[in-house]
Amino acid sequence: METQIELALAEIKRGSFEIIDEEAILKLLKNYYENGKSFYVKAGFDPTAPDLHLGHTVLLQKLATFQKFGGIVQFLIGDFTASIGDPTGKSETRKILTKEQVLQNAQSYKEQVFKILDEEKTVVVFNSDWLNDLGAAGLINLASNLTVARMLERDDFSKRYASNTPIAVSEFTYPLLQGYDSVHLDSDIEVGGTDQKFNLLMGRTLQKAYNCKKQQAVLMMPILEGLDGVQKMSKSLGNYIGVTDETNDMFGKVLSVSDELMWRYFELLSTKSLQEIAEMKNGVENETLHPKKVKEELAIELVDRYHGNGAGIIAQEEFKKIFSQKDIPTNMECFEVENNSWICQVLVETGLEKSTSQARRDISAGAVKLNQEKIDDDKLNLTTGEYILQKGKKSFAKVIVKGKD
Amino acid sequence: METQIELALAEIKRGSFEIIDEEAILKLLKNYYENGKSFYVKAGFDPTAPDLHLGHTVLLQKLATFQKFGGIVQFLIGDFTASIGDPTGKSETRKILTKEQVLQNAQSYKEQVFKILDEEKTVVVFNSDWLNDLGAAGLINLASNLTVARMLERDDFSKRYASNTPIAVSEFTYPLLQGYDSVHLDSDIEVGGTDQKFNLLMGRTLQKAYNCKKQQAVLMMPILEGLDGVQKMSKSLGNYIGVTDETNDMFGKVLSVSDELMWRYFELLSTKSLQEIAEMKNGVENETLHPKKVKEELAIELVDRYHGNGAGIIAQEEFKKIFSQKDIPTNMECFEVENNSWICQVLVETGLEKSTSQARRDISAGAVKLNQEKIDDDKLNLTTGEYILQKGKKSFAKVIVKGKD
Repeated sequence: METQIELALAEIKRGSFEIIDEEAILKLLKNYYENGKSFYVKAGFDPTAPDLHLGHTVLLQKLATFQKFGGIVQFLIGDFTASIGDPTGKSETRKILTKEQVLQNAQSYKEQVFKILDEEKTVVVFNSDWLNDLGAAGLINLASNLTVARMLERDDFSKRYASNTPIAVSEFTYPLLQGYDSVHLDSDIEVGGTDQKFNLLMGRTLQKAYNCKKQQAVLMMPILEGLDGVQKMSKSLGNYIGVTDETNDMFGKVLSVSDELMWRYFELLSTKSLQEIAEMKNGVENETLHPKKVKEELAIELVDRYHGNGAGIIAQEEFKKIFSQKDIPTNMECFEVENNSWICQVLVETGLEKSTSQARRDISAGAVKLNQEKIDDDKLNLTTGEYILQKGKKSFAKVIVKGKD
Repeated sequence: METQIELALAEIKRGSFEIIDEEAILKLLKNYYENGKSFYVKAGFDPTAPDLHLGHTVLLQKLATFQKFGGIVQFLIGDFTASIGDPTGKSETRKILTKEQVLQNAQSYKEQVFKILDEEKTVVVFNSDWLNDLGAAGLINLASNLTVARMLERDDFSKRYASNTPIAVSEFTYPLLQGYDSVHLDSDIEVGGTDQKFNLLMGRTLQKAYNCKKQQAVLMMPILEGLDGVQKMSKSLGNYIGVTDETNDMFGKVLSVSDELMWRYFELLSTKSLQEIAEMKNGVENETLHPKKVKEELAIELVDRYHGNGAGIIAQEEFKKIFSQKDIPTNMECFEVENNSWICQVLVETGLEKSTSQARRDISAGAVKLNQEKIDDDKLNLTTGEYILQKGKKSFAKVIVKGKD
């Protein structure tokens, strides 16, 4: 049992950026293995319409790990503040959501996250359920637990205060509400991003102030790098894999990452155990295992997760079919282009065409293929991934579209 | 009519420390005199049990002045925060009050303040009536209208922040609530003490933020000096005249103030017009009027106000009777002693007795009189006022008990 607990703790710590009160987590694991007692792991999510990419799933994978070792996930949808809006009108991103919209978004969340989380071990909660009842008096009470000086120690607040960038008094209430959620939910652990440290610790502060029996441990996960391996994965940078991406896209994008980034993705996204990963690493080092094989394993795992078991193998075969056609040379010149490059420009850059106007004419003549399929749209832009570009019967080029730097 | 408005404005400005937006007050007065339109004058009061002294009535007198010139007083009892208490337990003075206690205290307020205010032109309101409905969301909305930097500009906050004295985040909400009261009440003017400037201006800020048609003008009254003419009038300093003081006490205390302070009291406490006061001042300067006579006028006015018309004259006669008894010498040695001095000690200090033990024996023998009445309590302490102390038939001393310095 000692070993089981140690292994569980190692899986929980895997990839984490920082843990506050690891001792408490160890105790919870012991209590689970020795007495079968579960514990609560809280994580908060935005109530706006979710459109998740793998960067968002790092937290979810960690929550899934907790579920394996006794954790009941408190999946908190922070809909309370969404009902307030921003009366200063400064923030365009802060829209007021109706209860209906919130419920609709929650449904969309569920469809996506239960591909990762165990539904049986997840409680979906909405903080408006208790924060609406808090009242102005309750909020003032809450706010009496923290000093202005302490609040201004928060990294972003201190920077803004020092640089005379306005901080609305209302902004001081959000960390307090997040902390109060932990009081109300009696959370044992809260998981969040590294940028959330102050707010995550507020749960501990307020659980103490409200004389709770425990103070939550805090586990912070790092931000996932995008396909370029440098910038954080993000929609606007175009270096992402969306959880709703098509199977072939998803497979191809995973194969396009560097070997180094592949191991990072294994650490943060795979459900393979630390031991399995260590064995694969060993294999690659001994040269008994080809890195491409390992990358395919990761791609299959991810495609299976988001498209159902078996979808990964099918994607792999499709991929092989394209890249192993007899009439495609095994060695092609390889070009890297920027995300969202215009197809005609790419044809010129790869030397397949002399000018974009010629490229346009050849496309309309049906002489240009992308991954073995004729192109009929000369306005096409290439997004992140690997492509084989072909003009006529004999001219080929491999094109890698990386995320924007 | 022009003159009427000018006179009204002069009476309103009388004794004030600072006015913000005098222009707006002038407009309100014009609208009253030209169109008969009333306007709202707000003032906030603590919901704790009131035990008013004349220092507290400076504000009330100003409100009464407004009532003469078209003002409807919004007498706001700030019971909302009294329902919160102080969960940090730091402040012992902040007690949670029940609704019943608040109503009881309000009743007690009414008994005292309607001796000054015109009941017909007064609306008593409780801010819990609308603040209870504000909710946490409403409070956050409210707090979005002000920046932390602006809040820290408040004099006491800036001092505390600079000296690392803790400021609870909740303290930032109180000025906001006070300002919101003005939004809710649609106040035209708010009257308060000089120490309230920041909070009074908050009403203007929030009325603007909430797109009210107007922004309240602000009138700040100074703090009244106590009987000593130096320190502010306060219960704990003992230099006060309570509005529930007995007629004779009240009369005697007013007569004990300096001539200079007498004019100050006229300015801030009397309902005599500026012209009447100017005439009296003239008389004193021309030596056609004795200052003592003027002081008696003030004393009569105040005793009448708090004990009913006619009570002032009776008190004056009582006072004269004591100090003009034939068996009392017109010239006596005069002693100043500290507030709350022990009678036996005073007897020794004035030379009427050789020791406090002798004084005690004489008191029990009925040989000591205070203002012509036998003392039977040898534990008596003298509080602020003027007294004639007598031992036996022939030994007299005049004792003036000033407020504590």
